[in-house]
Amino acid sequence: MWDSLWVDVGLATMAGTDPYGRIEDGAIAVKNGRIAWVGPREELPGRPEKLAAVVQEGEGGWITPALVDCHTHIVHGGQRAGEFEQRLMGASYADIARAGGGILSTVAATRAASLEDLVESAVRRLRPLLAEGLTVVEIKSGYGLDLDSELKMLRAARAIEARVPVTVVTTFLGAHAVPPEWKGNADGYIDFLCDEVLPAAVEQSLVDQVDAFCETIAFSPSQVARVFEAAALFKLPVKLHAEQLTDLGGATMAAGAGALSADHLEYLDADGVAAMARAGTVAVLLPGAFYTLGETRRPPVERLRKAGVPIAVATDSNPGSSPVTSLLTTMNMACVLFGLTPSEALAGVTRNAARALGLQAERGTLEAGKVADFVHWSIDEPAELAYRIGFNPCTTVIRNGAPTLSG
Amino acid sequence: MWDSLWVDVGLATMAGTDPYGRIEDGAIAVKNGRIAWVGPREELPGRPEKLAAVVQEGEGGWITPALVDCHTHIVHGGQRAGEFEQRLMGASYADIARAGGGILSTVAATRAASLEDLVESAVRRLRPLLAEGLTVVEIKSGYGLDLDSELKMLRAARAIEARVPVTVVTTFLGAHAVPPEWKGNADGYIDFLCDEVLPAAVEQSLVDQVDAFCETIAFSPSQVARVFEAAALFKLPVKLHAEQLTDLGGATMAAGAGALSADHLEYLDADGVAAMARAGTVAVLLPGAFYTLGETRRPPVERLRKAGVPIAVATDSNPGSSPVTSLLTTMNMACVLFGLTPSEALAGVTRNAARALGLQAERGTLEAGKVADFVHWSIDEPAELAYRIGFNPCTTVIRNGAPTLSG
Ligand SMILES: [Zn+2]
Ligand SMILES: [Zn+2]
Repeated sequence: MWDSLWVDVGLATMAGTDPYGRIEDGAIAVKNGRIAWVGPREELPGRPEKLAAVVQEGEGGWITPALVDCHTHIVHGGQRAGEFEQRLMGASYADIARAGGGILSTVAATRAASLEDLVESAVRRLRPLLAEGLTVVEIKSGYGLDLDSELKMLRAARAIEARVPVTVVTTFLGAHAVPPEWKGNADGYIDFLCDEVLPAAVEQSLVDQVDAFCETIAFSPSQVARVFEAAALFKLPVKLHAEQLTDLGGATMAAGAGALSADHLEYLDADGVAAMARAGTVAVLLPGAFYTLGETRRPPVERLRKAGVPIAVATDSNPGSSPVTSLLTTMNMACVLFGLTPSEALAGVTRNAARALGLQAERGTLEAGKVADFVHWSIDEPAELAYRIGFNPCTTVIRNGAPTLSG
Repeated sequence: MWDSLWVDVGLATMAGTDPYGRIEDGAIAVKNGRIAWVGPREELPGRPEKLAAVVQEGEGGWITPALVDCHTHIVHGGQRAGEFEQRLMGASYADIARAGGGILSTVAATRAASLEDLVESAVRRLRPLLAEGLTVVEIKSGYGLDLDSELKMLRAARAIEARVPVTVVTTFLGAHAVPPEWKGNADGYIDFLCDEVLPAAVEQSLVDQVDAFCETIAFSPSQVARVFEAAALFKLPVKLHAEQLTDLGGATMAAGAGALSADHLEYLDADGVAAMARAGTVAVLLPGAFYTLGETRRPPVERLRKAGVPIAVATDSNPGSSPVTSLLTTMNMACVLFGLTPSEALAGVTRNAARALGLQAERGTLEAGKVADFVHWSIDEPAELAYRIGFNPCTTVIRNGAPTLSG
């Protein structure tokens, strides 16, 4: 007998060839935290009450896979509302840097914060995402930029799992910016990361993946290549912030290294698209940063589509360029600003987001055998999830087969 | 003795010359639903416990006036997620119109809806706004476009006050679009509105203000002038959807008629700005529609500022061009997309939004004697309200002196 069974719901399984993997009058069953059965209600092998201990009526709403935010910097000290305000009052980036603003202000605040402060403030920002049906979040380091602070960030990310019902995937992003102590010696800093910080973090089981920021204002492809080599020594998967502001060929390099994803990609060219398609590297689009920075160059969505590159969408939640804590609003931005369809946006925060984290065998679709993480929404059709701005129709979040939230 | 007194809070009074009317360590007292006292804590005329029956600790957060959404179409039947999806899948506006989409699909759904359906669905969309500290909402008719359906919409708007803690200002917008029955005879439809629909609605006390849509795809300035004359017969204040897609001189005409506000204004020219400044007409900016429609021409914010035109910001909540139900996100859009400062955005949803509804004597700022509608936020500085996307730091909403929500 199944533990539970949902009926009277539409299912957007996100599996199969139809864009939503749509089952209009569906049923989904859970056993031992896994999806035990999913399909059209009329194909159920018996009457619901005979099949499951608990039968749940979906009241005509829709069930989708639980949401996955596959790119965040949600653990950090401080916030940058003051800088946001100064910029709108006419201050230049140089003015703000002189006043101690920019990423280095977040580095200073993160170094000064206690582990508990980091956990608390991140949990506070995570809550609206959890209320929207999130059950997996990727969290990067990269505001510590010294041994102790990078480890502290990763420990904070791990500690979140004990506070709220979410699975955290940690990413080591020591190569986010050159810290003040290493100014003018980025190569030396990369050596330090590869020889000391990453090994220490791995030793303490704090790292699931490795990322870097490949950009003229950050690290060169050859510096990134060294970070990737260090990751390979520990058999850690890699990913890359690439082609956000310029085209350095980062995505091609990442694809060559078998990266799970390349992220941002506004300046990605045709060769980069082809390389990603060959490698199966996911394109993670981050419309919150595009919007907040007032960018105008869009990522090459049509090219990615034609090449069959899986497209994910994430908040990039961070205090500078994307102070965003809603995946639903991010889905809307992916549609309005980048031209994704609502079904692509939903695939981008479920199936393809799971794939960007290497979790596609266990998560991201409604298929028998996968982890039973799914969401019930009070909506008439799945396109509503991307259509509205500032409205959360989530009624129930199921994680490992059990409700975490009922509304 | 006061009924209640808040201490240990910052106050953004939105009064005086400082952008926020900022009082860092403030106190605000309530008596009989009105603000009895507001000022720096050190100027309190005694110890808090001696002054008020209830003393509330603000824990270092901030209090602002309650939010006012001064332009919405939140009462309507149906939704248009399907149309949103079709457009992103490549359908043209003509395709969508042929498939029964566009504003006329909302008219059909609104006509078909029961009064109760209209109230229910609007209340559902209002809840996220209420959770953000909204206590006043303007709601327009304009999807009925026949006698019964326009009256039904206005009745639904009025009925909302009995369901949730909010003050509703109703606006008659019969001149929103030419309905199918009057196709090719817009003048006849205007006569019908002025001679039959508006008088019936006024007779039933359903109308607080009168609005029209002045646009090449809607009504001409001379047709709008006739609506304004009809409003004047009933001594009703007017406002206008003007200069959204083209410049027909609507704002100048509205200002000449003493309009409370002119709304949208992307194509407003220098003469229009000057006319609005002379008349004291509020400029209501609607960034949600600009964003959703992918517009590129911004309203002339710098000119409005220099001319001293009060600037309000509203959701324009509607199923077609602005399916938005968050004023905080709208504030963020006003900053990011239109270049408002965070303090201008906050004034836009408090002081100037109240003024756009003619309520400035009673609402919109924290001043002794005004209605005690205010919000406590768990934030470090008022700029945070406009800075984040998808995060609601509201802890308590006070309406008529009493809490409606505690978080
Ligand atoms: Zn990032
Ligand atoms: Zn409108």
